Amino acid sequence: MKAHKIAVIAGDGIGKEVMPEGLRCIDAAARKHGIAIQWDEFDWSCDYYLKHGTMMPADWKAQIGNHDAIFFGAVGDPARVPDHVSLWGSLLKFRREFDQYVNLRPARLMPGVKSPLVGREPGDIDFFIVRENTEGEYSSIGGKMFAGTEREFVVQESIFTRIGVDRVIRFAYQLAQRRDKKHLTSATKSNGISISMPYWDERFAAIGEEFPDVRTDKFHIDILTANFVRRPDYFDVVVASNLFGDILSDLGPACTGTIAIAPSANLNPERRFPSLFEPVHGSAPDIYGQQIANPIGQIWAGSMMLDHLGYPQAAADVLRAIETVLAEGPHTPDLGGKAKTGDLGKAIAEVI
Amino acid sequence: MKAHKIAVIAGDGIGKEVMPEGLRCIDAAARKHGIAIQWDEFDWSCDYYLKHGTMMPADWKAQIGNHDAIFFGAVGDPARVPDHVSLWGSLLKFRREFDQYVNLRPARLMPGVKSPLVGREPGDIDFFIVRENTEGEYSSIGGKMFAGTEREFVVQESIFTRIGVDRVIRFAYQLAQRRDKKHLTSATKSNGISISMPYWDERFAAIGEEFPDVRTDKFHIDILTANFVRRPDYFDVVVASNLFGDILSDLGPACTGTIAIAPSANLNPERRFPSLFEPVHGSAPDIYGQQIANPIGQIWAGSMMLDHLGYPQAAADVLRAIETVLAEGPHTPDLGGKAKTGDLGKAIAEVI
Ligand SMILES: CC(C)[C@H](C(=O)O)[C@@H](O)C(=O)O
Ligand SMILES: CC(C)[C@H](C(=O)O)[C@@H](O)C(=O)O
Repeated sequence: MKAHKIAVIAGDGIGKEVMPEGLRCIDAAARKHGIAIQWDEFDWSCDYYLKHGTMMPADWKAQIGNHDAIFFGAVGDPARVPDHVSLWGSLLKFRREFDQYVNLRPARLMPGVKSPLVGREPGDIDFFIVRENTEGEYSSIGGKMFAGTEREFVVQESIFTRIGVDRVIRFAYQLAQRRDKKHLTSATKSNGISISMPYWDERFAAIGEEFPDVRTDKFHIDILTANFVRRPDYFDVVVASNLFGDILSDLGPACTGTIAIAPSANLNPERRFPSLFEPVHGSAPDIYGQQIANPIGQIWAGSMMLDHLGYPQAAADVLRAIETVLAEGPHTPDLGGKAKTGDLGKAIAEVI
Repeated sequence: MKAHKIAVIAGDGIGKEVMPEGLRCIDAAARKHGIAIQWDEFDWSCDYYLKHGTMMPADWKAQIGNHDAIFFGAVGDPARVPDHVSLWGSLLKFRREFDQYVNLRPARLMPGVKSPLVGREPGDIDFFIVRENTEGEYSSIGGKMFAGTEREFVVQESIFTRIGVDRVIRFAYQLAQRRDKKHLTSATKSNGISISMPYWDERFAAIGEEFPDVRTDKFHIDILTANFVRRPDYFDVVVASNLFGDILSDLGPACTGTIAIAPSANLNPERRFPSLFEPVHGSAPDIYGQQIANPIGQIWAGSMMLDHLGYPQAAADVLRAIETVLAEGPHTPDLGGKAKTGDLGKAIAEVI
């Protein structure tokens, strides 16, 4: 059997602490299920930047473009490298240049995790956010005029292409169609944002004709965030633009108390390019070095990677092991325990 | 004493049910404090649109431009008039053309209201959102190209002017400076939105030099929404762009359980034009006619109007009466009671 080649980029800060636990647990699942994985590590990070002046070598695409996936920790070290340099030179570059146009993020109430919401139990909240990941509000075009004068202004352009909008919405419909509830919610703001959001609504309705069995609704982003708090059990799959998806995929996990442990899959569904799997949390340089970071986001991201590689059983095993350890401990400080990053990784690997 | 001339626009749906209670309560406070108010009613609404083809007469500015304030219910009746027609022909037009560049919205945990968040008590949450209200993501410029083809795309432009950004940020600093905590938080997304949000950050820092006694911080909008849920007691004043402020000012009240009763002040601080006071909730045509709408948003908006007119004592009286009725009842169905819209209005007016 040919081994799956995975590019491993631990990155900065706690990325370097949680990654070894991710590798440990995915290795455990791979052994159990007879999956061959070859990990190729790359030290692309802010340290790399400070040595070489770029976040990655010029031939980065050649180096990892043929890998089966990228297993990513976190980048960023704002005290030494501005965020726009580290993020646009790495994570956001992968998303854009590897056309990872779907960012898939679960919001799921897990056993042993306290939701900040009154009266919610595991099982109550279990939905996915499908975020557009390459264009929209993150299009990075625009500029400044009359700099330094009273008339100074900046323009930021949001670009929504038909191809870009249709394909992410279609992905979301397909995902909803495979689930029990078959319920897809669209995030909009067509009452205030007058061109792009009515266009989004129009395409959402048009693609919907291909999926008559999926129940749909749409909410303006303002009231949608309110509804995440008021009735998170209502949602099944939520599709959103780049910015709205960014917001909802922090808020959703916040409502389930899992923001420190949520994963994120950056998918190129056609597999022309490698997809990237990362925890939602950042590099948190302030807590780096103490081994107190919770590695579950990284491990859960690894579970999504196994699923993407075609091993749903192995993926489910990892998720179940995460749930067991969340319910029974050990717990890192963020969950009220005293265990170290490595203790959790070991415990989860053992359950697997 | 010259009477304050207030333009009253009840609008559509439950706007027509809650407005009479707003008038009743503000009248009660005005009587008590010897304030003379002249209410001038205008029937500008979707009904008006269906008769005349516009939401307002051509000379609307002349008719109300010299009033001291606008007391506004809610507009919108999407089954009969598209939202972009009703909103851009009325509410959003006032904000823009009367240069109501500050949208001020409280998030406050009130007695008798259940917060959906675990373990939060009245007094724990009490902050203001200062939203830019005239430009930014709501600038309505852009367009579509290659319509109907595979290459189709739309562009939506966000415009941030130095004047527009500086003045709303300065207002927020001034508000924070007057409060006990003197703590101002800025909502940004400069790590993903590459031109407008770094500019926002730059102006936030520049204006800050005028206010050395105000403590500041900034959060990216994604984690900021998460923090509204995780530690809402942390905030004092939050300043945000048009879109981010829109989101935060639904989410904040959702976290305090008060989304149905929160008010919104659309201010032209220089008083060159009338300011507008409205409940945050919309016209909710689906529940119109049953007298079950909660009128507190309208009454609370009236309290903010009294404050703006120079009567902080009267404003405080109205707010105290709202708190008394929230704590002791009667309650409308949204608060778990059986009282009618008018019962709450009467009860609050009596306490005043
Ligand atoms: C109705 C809509 C256009 C409006 C807005 O987005 O400003 C509303 O949500 C608000 O917050 O007042
Ligand atoms: C770091 C930042 C640019 C990024 C984003 O906004 O996409 C992050 O918040 C995320 O959600 O992955």
